[in-house]
Amino acid sequence: MNKISNNPVYDISLSYQKTAALNAAIKLDIFTAIGKHCLTVEQIADVTGGSLRGVRILCDFLCVIGLLEKNTNLYNLSVDAKRFLDRTSPHCLADVIDFLAAPEIVSMIIDDPPSYVIAGGASGLTKISPDSPVWVKFARAMIPFASVAAKRITAYIAKKAMQPRTVLDIAAGHGLFGIEVANAISDALVMAIDWDNVLEVARRNADLAGLANRYKTTSGNAFEVDWGDNYDLILLPNILHHFDQDGCVHLLSKAKDSLSIDGSVFVIDIIPNPDRVSPPEQAAFAFRMLATTPKGDAYTCAEYETMSRAAGLTLVDSMQLLPTHQTLLEFKV
Amino acid sequence: MNKISNNPVYDISLSYQKTAALNAAIKLDIFTAIGKHCLTVEQIADVTGGSLRGVRILCDFLCVIGLLEKNTNLYNLSVDAKRFLDRTSPHCLADVIDFLAAPEIVSMIIDDPPSYVIAGGASGLTKISPDSPVWVKFARAMIPFASVAAKRITAYIAKKAMQPRTVLDIAAGHGLFGIEVANAISDALVMAIDWDNVLEVARRNADLAGLANRYKTTSGNAFEVDWGDNYDLILLPNILHHFDQDGCVHLLSKAKDSLSIDGSVFVIDIIPNPDRVSPPEQAAFAFRMLATTPKGDAYTCAEYETMSRAAGLTLVDSMQLLPTHQTLLEFKV
Repeated sequence: MNKISNNPVYDISLSYQKTAALNAAIKLDIFTAIGKHCLTVEQIADVTGGSLRGVRILCDFLCVIGLLEKNTNLYNLSVDAKRFLDRTSPHCLADVIDFLAAPEIVSMIIDDPPSYVIAGGASGLTKISPDSPVWVKFARAMIPFASVAAKRITAYIAKKAMQPRTVLDIAAGHGLFGIEVANAISDALVMAIDWDNVLEVARRNADLAGLANRYKTTSGNAFEVDWGDNYDLILLPNILHHFDQDGCVHLLSKAKDSLSIDGSVFVIDIIPNPDRVSPPEQAAFAFRMLATTPKGDAYTCAEYETMSRAAGLTLVDSMQLLPTHQTLLEFKV
Repeated sequence: MNKISNNPVYDISLSYQKTAALNAAIKLDIFTAIGKHCLTVEQIADVTGGSLRGVRILCDFLCVIGLLEKNTNLYNLSVDAKRFLDRTSPHCLADVIDFLAAPEIVSMIIDDPPSYVIAGGASGLTKISPDSPVWVKFARAMIPFASVAAKRITAYIAKKAMQPRTVLDIAAGHGLFGIEVANAISDALVMAIDWDNVLEVARRNADLAGLANRYKTTSGNAFEVDWGDNYDLILLPNILHHFDQDGCVHLLSKAKDSLSIDGSVFVIDIIPNPDRVSPPEQAAFAFRMLATTPKGDAYTCAEYETMSRAAGLTLVDSMQLLPTHQTLLEFKV
């Protein structure tokens, strides 16, 4: 429950204020400050560098939206905030707001909403140059989100007794998907493709995981660069949703051409039910693609099957990467 | 229920997308289009001028946030949308989004949330010049919101058998509060004070109500212009929350000096409980004032009592203006 009005028109008209308040609280790290002890406004202001008036009003708002609790003059974390917003929690998701509510993306979505509904898309993310630092910020911000999914992918590989020796990670970003596979398969070699500045993040994460000598990178646009061939496993994590079906078929075809005999392609993506209005998180995702890409979408499983057939691939299995809202689809030639 | 994720960090981080989607749907008047019959994507696109892709994705998102319902390929209004968003409904609130999510205000709140928490306020609305057309837009946008409250105020006047002959409406905006009083009291004369361009909206509303010969206006800043004296009723509707307590005492003192013997001051405002975290809508309002004014606030009833005492006024009665989230406080000398 995070309503600020029982009237849905008011609540939704004002919903952007919730994003703003959460963003301010994360940037001032109010949740970690309160995580140690219940604190007064004066103490929170002192620890976080906020003003008394600003902290008092922000913390009261955070109580309204269910992230804090107030007992006379002391603020405490709600159960959700303790788990997901206190930086000492292993489940902390605080950094995801740097991607989900990045100023560049918020602006694309909220500045002129009728425009992309009328046009059927927006240049959006494609206007950001490949070497923009924003891609590095995004790669970093999505680590809490991706690390959970990455562990589920290795569970899938273990369950199926797969032993990929060569792994290709397309639009690797933070690199966590390929890195987790290499962690699990002790002789697997990973090739990651992404923009050069983003690959620095992936390489650092690979180094931190002790994989420097099994981790290689190729910089450039996944549509244009040579992927190489004979990979046992090709990962397409959260990339296809940015493109129209022709673009997806193009990338799936490149994947097929780069596979070893009996190799697998893993599409990791956000896949709504056939009705396209459930589950909420997956169904809602298409709107983000409408507002921030020319022709991206949240494709259904049936659409992925159609696209993969056009690329010469067959869906062989799938798994929801719970508790995230991503799904793994496994394809083979 | 308008959640797009069961995880509150994701849901709140993405809440601004809900505002954007509602805004697009209202601007394309999708709710009124669907209000007549259940429609397909193709029909909605045809009626509203949206693209097929844009309308399909927007309507699916509106299903996720509870404003539409989808039955195979037909979209219908939810109960809430039928009541509050179809322009043929007498309860339609669609226009309020032009104020609640006005681009000027969204930008103040969402562009740099830590800034106003650290500073304890923002120049915000005070940076907008008095003759900006935005004030006219705001006055118009708040009519659905104000008209309900205005009718409750006249009910209060009737209940107390008040017969104000002279009414002063400070920062009148759309003018509806003074206009409803003049509608109810057949010989009441109204003086409205606001910026000149906003008064055009109030005068037009007074004309439409057939009150042209009982409606006078004075343009200017309420802190600076002469209010005149001997008013039986002085209205301070949704103005005090923009200022600090000194500013409120200043305006309440001017009100006291302009009252007739036995006259009443009505403060109509958004007043949270003493705990400042309930009810949700009233408590959340302070955050909007933090982000958009230097020192405004959602004052509690006790604070209004303290401020009115400093101005030589006494609280004599109050009423919640249900179903709105505003409260009427009546003061006398």
